[in-house]
Amino acid sequence: MDLYEAMGSQRAVRRLRIDPIPEDVLSRVLTAASWAPTGGNVQPFRMITVQDRQKLSVLQGLYAQEWTSYTQEMRAEGSALALARQKMLRAGDYLAAHLAQVPVMVIFCFNPALMAITDADLDRPSVVGGGSVYTAVQNLMLACRVEGLGCVLTTLLCYQEAAIKDLLAIPEDWGTCAHIPIGYPVLKGHGPITRRPIEKLVFQDAWGQAMTNKERS
Amino acid sequence: MDLYEAMGSQRAVRRLRIDPIPEDVLSRVLTAASWAPTGGNVQPFRMITVQDRQKLSVLQGLYAQEWTSYTQEMRAEGSALALARQKMLRAGDYLAAHLAQVPVMVIFCFNPALMAITDADLDRPSVVGGGSVYTAVQNLMLACRVEGLGCVLTTLLCYQEAAIKDLLAIPEDWGTCAHIPIGYPVLKGHGPITRRPIEKLVFQDAWGQAMTNKERS
Repeated sequence: MDLYEAMGSQRAVRRLRIDPIPEDVLSRVLTAASWAPTGGNVQPFRMITVQDRQKLSVLQGLYAQEWTSYTQEMRAEGSALALARQKMLRAGDYLAAHLAQVPVMVIFCFNPALMAITDADLDRPSVVGGGSVYTAVQNLMLACRVEGLGCVLTTLLCYQEAAIKDLLAIPEDWGTCAHIPIGYPVLKGHGPITRRPIEKLVFQDAWGQAMTNKERS
Repeated sequence: MDLYEAMGSQRAVRRLRIDPIPEDVLSRVLTAASWAPTGGNVQPFRMITVQDRQKLSVLQGLYAQEWTSYTQEMRAEGSALALARQKMLRAGDYLAAHLAQVPVMVIFCFNPALMAITDADLDRPSVVGGGSVYTAVQNLMLACRVEGLGCVLTTLLCYQEAAIKDLLAIPEDWGTCAHIPIGYPVLKGHGPITRRPIEKLVFQDAWGQAMTNKERS
């Protein structure tokens, strides 16, 4: 599949079937993640593919708890909630109720000691460590899209990191930053996406300055 | 171009030509970034395309200073430095000396107040905010690869964030987290990449446990 076609139809797919993922398909998806650029080509991440039903059940329990808490305010709005948010909420509820039945959940682990976190000392939340993990996460998710697999990037399980590390025997110096259930879609899966046009996301040469339509040398 | 072909040959390209990038090409690359998934589809990032030569000169000055400082230890190793690192160092020196001559540098800005940073309170560096920006960064870089454009993700300019925000009139509550020079390659540009095989990056069901070669349901 063409790159632009894949990117332009990559949706968050939260309703996933229990059907197994063939080994070669999963292998291609993981390999795509391994190709991503990382700072100094250090690849400071590891992926744990959770396929064991009992462990998936534990993950579902932890996830459902955080999902309920995270969506409490949204839920209180009831029918006043924007339609897109209502749909997201329903799909998320489905995921929280069925997580133990996905064929695989990929958990990205990272080691901050292997990263040059250039914004660590700034007076704002640091994000730069993510530059050497979420490139791989996006490769993995795009590969899923091409393989006809649904998936969604979740991070709520960071609230339960101690329990997750215990469950999966993750060493002390590694954290987790992406918990991605993967499976074939229950419904249509990927398709049209809704995003802001680039005119609202891009400035030229200074904040607030619209792009010109001229080539520059 | 096929998605896997693009990912499998995406290199960090640090030697870039001054030649302009046609408007429609740059537009496709920025649009690809806009398509990326972000938490709650909030798109908490903006891109500034710096094309003004004077501003690029200022950025070069700041970058060169940080590059020199960052590579000091590496440089001290001289010929004892691994060959791959020596090559990276030379290409990086070229970039630091020619940054003002790239046709465009894309600077990603983000607003942490628009993000759900689920690992903010953990006793380790936070990276989750990056999950709603570096997905877009990776889309942009993959689009560059498909368009025959070289680029490289740099983050050293975070050390100069106050100066960058002043130069580009970035509001108080926004930070910068990716500074990406883009241009046509001086040399061959993209091509073969060197990465760990997935057997070294992937565990199944627990840390340290090798993948089995069986399909699971």
